[in-house]
Amino acid sequence: MFRVKAPLAKKVQLVAMMGKPENNGYSALAKEPYDMTQDQDGFWSVTTAPPGPGYYEYTFLIDGVVTMDLGSTTTFSGDHETSHIEVPAQEPTFYDVQNVPHGDVRQHGYHSDITGKWRRALVYTPPEYDANPTRRYPVLYLQHGGTQNETSWLTGGKANFILDNLIAAGQAVPMLVVMDNGSTFPPGLTRLPDPPPPDNPFERVMVNEIVPMVDATYRTAPHREHRAMAGLSMGSHQTLQIALAHLDVFSHIGVFSPAPTAFDVHTIYGGVLANAAAINRQVRLFWWGAGTAEVAIYEGVKYRLARLDEVGVKYVFREWPGLAHEWRLWRRSLHDLASRLFR
Amino acid sequence: MFRVKAPLAKKVQLVAMMGKPENNGYSALAKEPYDMTQDQDGFWSVTTAPPGPGYYEYTFLIDGVVTMDLGSTTTFSGDHETSHIEVPAQEPTFYDVQNVPHGDVRQHGYHSDITGKWRRALVYTPPEYDANPTRRYPVLYLQHGGTQNETSWLTGGKANFILDNLIAAGQAVPMLVVMDNGSTFPPGLTRLPDPPPPDNPFERVMVNEIVPMVDATYRTAPHREHRAMAGLSMGSHQTLQIALAHLDVFSHIGVFSPAPTAFDVHTIYGGVLANAAAINRQVRLFWWGAGTAEVAIYEGVKYRLARLDEVGVKYVFREWPGLAHEWRLWRRSLHDLASRLFR
Repeated sequence: MFRVKAPLAKKVQLVAMMGKPENNGYSALAKEPYDMTQDQDGFWSVTTAPPGPGYYEYTFLIDGVVTMDLGSTTTFSGDHETSHIEVPAQEPTFYDVQNVPHGDVRQHGYHSDITGKWRRALVYTPPEYDANPTRRYPVLYLQHGGTQNETSWLTGGKANFILDNLIAAGQAVPMLVVMDNGSTFPPGLTRLPDPPPPDNPFERVMVNEIVPMVDATYRTAPHREHRAMAGLSMGSHQTLQIALAHLDVFSHIGVFSPAPTAFDVHTIYGGVLANAAAINRQVRLFWWGAGTAEVAIYEGVKYRLARLDEVGVKYVFREWPGLAHEWRLWRRSLHDLASRLFR
Repeated sequence: MFRVKAPLAKKVQLVAMMGKPENNGYSALAKEPYDMTQDQDGFWSVTTAPPGPGYYEYTFLIDGVVTMDLGSTTTFSGDHETSHIEVPAQEPTFYDVQNVPHGDVRQHGYHSDITGKWRRALVYTPPEYDANPTRRYPVLYLQHGGTQNETSWLTGGKANFILDNLIAAGQAVPMLVVMDNGSTFPPGLTRLPDPPPPDNPFERVMVNEIVPMVDATYRTAPHREHRAMAGLSMGSHQTLQIALAHLDVFSHIGVFSPAPTAFDVHTIYGGVLANAAAINRQVRLFWWGAGTAEVAIYEGVKYRLARLDEVGVKYVFREWPGLAHEWRLWRRSLHDLASRLFR
């Protein structure tokens, strides 16, 4: 049940990515909100269908103004701060904080000469990192989706707790996870123009600035064999574009919920997929995932994988029945991917 | 100039801690907001007096509903998310990110048996920390104010950049800064009741859980001589209560903008201030600060310091003309305090 006080309002609605699978698309605002009803004390309320455990974003639309809930915290999504709640599972599950050793998440500031701006990377270090001052670790570069930012894999994704739990159970290799902002603007801009400029600098920032900075700052194993890149939605396209263009830098690739695009397997990504023998040798893991309820994306992934089959490119595919374009899916995606990395 | 679109609203106001010094008290909502005027396109706007450089929180009050600005980010203040902006100085100043080595801020999760909850500490490590794997560092425990949380000293306070700049200039000893949540609830509660229970567990959490956790997790110099505690407003009262009751744990004390309270120098804090010789020996730095525009607080500090003079307790006092109960003051307070710690 959602409830908000707005005694003078004429119309109040809940815009929520929960209980309505069709609302779990790219933009909740483009979908049908819930109408709320007012009581005599000026409170508006609505009770949604019971959601499963997980993370849900929502806002109130009060006489047309997008309004955050003072009773919960916000996250950056939809290109602005958005309210969210976590519906707990009955028992602590793979993404919950549990009684296991915890890695730190470090905020690291650095200057980007390419964009002319100060940036920050959020870097998960595994629990044992400080206790083994000579050991070097592999690195997963993990990207958010469109209208999100570098914090999203923590608030929405719970990436740090997923890694803590996997590592404690011996189900993942201890690794660093680097989360940085993929909505990177050219110098002088504070937002990406629409449409984005053709020379969006994130590829160069990732390869020429972020990876060298991480290798210089943390005890990484600085070699392609020990680097993975993965991302969700917009971040999955960036992953494909960047990792496949820089196979001297990355060897493991994770593609979560990519939007449908044209896909000529012989020409896309510089044509590297056409040489299956080379790709299968260089890409140690080519992981794809989608939920069956993000229908166009799911069908688009199946289409691409059929093309990869035709040329003989190997991959791993995981699908999740009933899940849409949302964090419940991407938490499961990271959990499965991370368990297979650097093996 | 503040501007927000609300075509259907009858009345829109700006609640802002800027341009109106009298609004920089405990609660901006209790003070006079700015009325905004509507144009024919449904936008409401108001132009405030020009504020000086610094950090300012604000919200829109749209037909009585507290509304965040979609055009800026939020911080936790007033017990809920609140919009804020940073007005830059003409030249980068002591709290701005500059071209100097940067320490990391680490988010560290740990379990509190006292509260029965998982907590997180935010820990600034100085730039050289990872490069000197055997060196041990002193620690400043730095507390936020009421209705804020452990993130406030970063978003509002820019504590990490203040330390970066001081350390780079050789004006501060490299140190860790630990920021944790002082609004600590007893088990079973998710908010502090009003009035707070007499056994607010934060003192025990700080002394029995946070300090030992930090000493076990980071390369600290684990001795009273190398520990400081400081805080602003509510956090300054917690600092006085906790540090003066645990002089075996802390040796440096920073008191920023404490609200006026009864102050019998012979009996308060267990009477420890009455023995000036002992206090002057044990407290290596007893730092007090206030702004002249937070009038009652300023007068209350002067009153207490006069009492300390009477019994011969030594202290350092810094006052800032024209500054009120706000981050411009507390950034300056931290800057001055940190330059004097552990000397």
